[in-house]
Amino acid sequence: MVSVDQANHEALRRILAARPVLVAVAPAAEVVPGLGEGVILHAGPPISWERMSGPLRGAVIGGILFEGWARSEAEAVALVEGGQIRFDPCHHHQAVGPMAGVTTPSMPVWVVENTAFGNRAFCNLNEGLGKVLRYGAYGEEVLRRLAWMRDVLGPALAAALERLPGGIDLKHLIAQALHMGDEGHNRNKAGSALLLRTLAPALARVGAAGDGRLGGRLAEVFDFLAANEMFALNLVMAACKATMDPAHGIPGSSVVTAMARNGTDFGIRVSGLGDRWFTAPSQVPQGLYFPGFRAEDANPDIGDSTITETAGLGGFAMAAAPAIVQFVGGTPRDALQATLDMYAITAGENPAFGIPVLDFRGTPTGIDIRKVVETGLLPRVNTGIAHKEAGIGQIGAGLVEPPMACFEEALLALAEAVAPDEPEPAPSPGEPAGGASAG
Amino acid sequence: MVSVDQANHEALRRILAARPVLVAVAPAAEVVPGLGEGVILHAGPPISWERMSGPLRGAVIGGILFEGWARSEAEAVALVEGGQIRFDPCHHHQAVGPMAGVTTPSMPVWVVENTAFGNRAFCNLNEGLGKVLRYGAYGEEVLRRLAWMRDVLGPALAAALERLPGGIDLKHLIAQALHMGDEGHNRNKAGSALLLRTLAPALARVGAAGDGRLGGRLAEVFDFLAANEMFALNLVMAACKATMDPAHGIPGSSVVTAMARNGTDFGIRVSGLGDRWFTAPSQVPQGLYFPGFRAEDANPDIGDSTITETAGLGGFAMAAAPAIVQFVGGTPRDALQATLDMYAITAGENPAFGIPVLDFRGTPTGIDIRKVVETGLLPRVNTGIAHKEAGIGQIGAGLVEPPMACFEEALLALAEAVAPDEPEPAPSPGEPAGGASAG
Repeated sequence: MVSVDQANHEALRRILAARPVLVAVAPAAEVVPGLGEGVILHAGPPISWERMSGPLRGAVIGGILFEGWARSEAEAVALVEGGQIRFDPCHHHQAVGPMAGVTTPSMPVWVVENTAFGNRAFCNLNEGLGKVLRYGAYGEEVLRRLAWMRDVLGPALAAALERLPGGIDLKHLIAQALHMGDEGHNRNKAGSALLLRTLAPALARVGAAGDGRLGGRLAEVFDFLAANEMFALNLVMAACKATMDPAHGIPGSSVVTAMARNGTDFGIRVSGLGDRWFTAPSQVPQGLYFPGFRAEDANPDIGDSTITETAGLGGFAMAAAPAIVQFVGGTPRDALQATLDMYAITAGENPAFGIPVLDFRGTPTGIDIRKVVETGLLPRVNTGIAHKEAGIGQIGAGLVEPPMACFEEALLALAEAVAPDEPEPAPSPGEPAGGASAG
Repeated sequence: MVSVDQANHEALRRILAARPVLVAVAPAAEVVPGLGEGVILHAGPPISWERMSGPLRGAVIGGILFEGWARSEAEAVALVEGGQIRFDPCHHHQAVGPMAGVTTPSMPVWVVENTAFGNRAFCNLNEGLGKVLRYGAYGEEVLRRLAWMRDVLGPALAAALERLPGGIDLKHLIAQALHMGDEGHNRNKAGSALLLRTLAPALARVGAAGDGRLGGRLAEVFDFLAANEMFALNLVMAACKATMDPAHGIPGSSVVTAMARNGTDFGIRVSGLGDRWFTAPSQVPQGLYFPGFRAEDANPDIGDSTITETAGLGGFAMAAAPAIVQFVGGTPRDALQATLDMYAITAGENPAFGIPVLDFRGTPTGIDIRKVVETGLLPRVNTGIAHKEAGIGQIGAGLVEPPMACFEEALLALAEAVAPDEPEPAPSPGEPAGGASAG
């Protein structure tokens, strides 16, 4: 299987060469390809309304109400059941979304450009914790916050980024955050503080210029940013998506370029296996529950946030974030071991993301489905936990394992794809700064 | 020596009970007792102009020029040599200052109140890195920055704090920063980002209110805060001073309540030994030098910033800050070992300051001079390195050991103080919220 190794070498090279830069914030309809009237993007592999879990259904209803396509929950459901809404995975539109991942045309999104390859990726903005759309809540409070994010937060961030012509180097921001106890998935306290710090001078200038879009509501923006320690998550996710897309589509490569869950199915995509999703039932996370909730209330694992683990962050970088165990459970030693285990199933290490306690060793990067199946070690995933019913929201956080079946099925498909009676696949030359080979 | 143990138990109790809260920023002359016209405070134990090292002399000259007491270096020196300037340690005025520690009446200072005991402590504001007064530089650039800090930064922070009626809980801020890779002395990246995050909404409101003192220069304030990763240092120092002062003055206690260097002498004060300083020659730090500088250029250790180690942070908390080795040298394992060593010379641990990689064990806290002399282990100190000549500034950062002679001499003094033929000293009851027993 030398050709697979060569292909993976090229996949890893592209991942390590990525330069994700935050260049703009804009309404999704203006920048995300194919996201127009009546379209709703969601997390994970494709799924029909009939098979959607409670939190994804709740977020869909909320998205429809937010867009004004319906005026009540009943109207929203009728619209869906009448076939008036087209559902599509975020991943099919260069996008990712945490938890339900519901992204509708009016929502502002982060625009991240991988300047080494020219491709872009998108993610909506983080709403904070508690009753939020991405966990399936869609009450008055949720819709009011989404409207404020559309009318105040998004335009303020957009105007601030216009004053930062070079954008914000996300590789550098994430590298710093890993030195400050983040792992980039369930702990983004440092990244969020660094992001606020980086944006603050430009936001202040927007406020001083009396920018009409901001309307003197700068303090509200700072209130929101200062109170939301997960604000950087969605931006890190967009950076990871922008990083992984150029590594997709390399014939013969067994490197995973996406792991994503829609709340019903866990799916992976593999670089050398085209646009196909390999899916299996999503598991219920094990973790710590907020007071009043327990494991029986939990929905199976949901969200595109596993793009962080796919890119060598999250569960793969837990050794950098020992304090995360207060949120997801376990001990600092478990967090260290999680990272050490992941070196056994990855194609390489990312020297840009050094882990201080491991003498700045790079995070394990590029999940190799061959190694997952051979070792029986599954990727470690940190995640939030949603209530299984629509309308409730987050009830905890913890760890979850992807189903092994996805990896086994993908490995069988790869064996067929690289079978010796087929033309031998060769890695594409893939020059940096050339066109993206994103799927 | 049971009575010493009892006294130390009380000292530790007071340290752990401290609640340092940032309550205001104000011109030093308005809040620091005894800091009027012609008075200059400096770091470390008392010292005459004749014995001052280059960087302290440079900072004194800069302080005089900044106050407008002289118009040239020569005039400033003449003023000093003519006996027109009174020098006094910051520590004699409830204050601390990093490096030269020069604090003059017009400088804005942090006002920190230990709400458990009612005492206050002060520290000037951090100027950033490079050519700065505290490292002995006093050129145009230095004086211009100090004037901006007096006219813009100080008033902006003061007005912001007026909008935060409860102040800012510094124990909580420091605890978070230790979970984010700071040790509070040479690494304050997280603390500074958290401080900016906490102040930003209030600063934005000050800007929106068109506060006359701020004059629409809010963006400059954010520029400065965003660029200065050591900004929280001086605030952490004031928190440590406010924490340690109530633990001073307990008869029989062998706990160190201050370690400080004036660039010539290293001095310590011990809880049970009154206002006496025990001094010995200051050592030259070992560390990493900025390009173009080397060990021969270095001044002996200088500054009150060792108040952080005195309170269980800095070198004592290095296990929390493995990434600091990129700044001070050594390996992450050395940083871990530094903290582990310090448990052998301290009276206890501070559960409020948990170190994640040590399963959230509290930082070693309350240096016991008996244990230092018995074990031969000296307190670990992180520090910046100043050029030995006036007017140049910082040239590196590293580690330094205090001279053992201070601790030996203090132990002899303590033995005399608690000798059995003397009346047996008893710990004072020292109720929290009562008056401070600060020296």
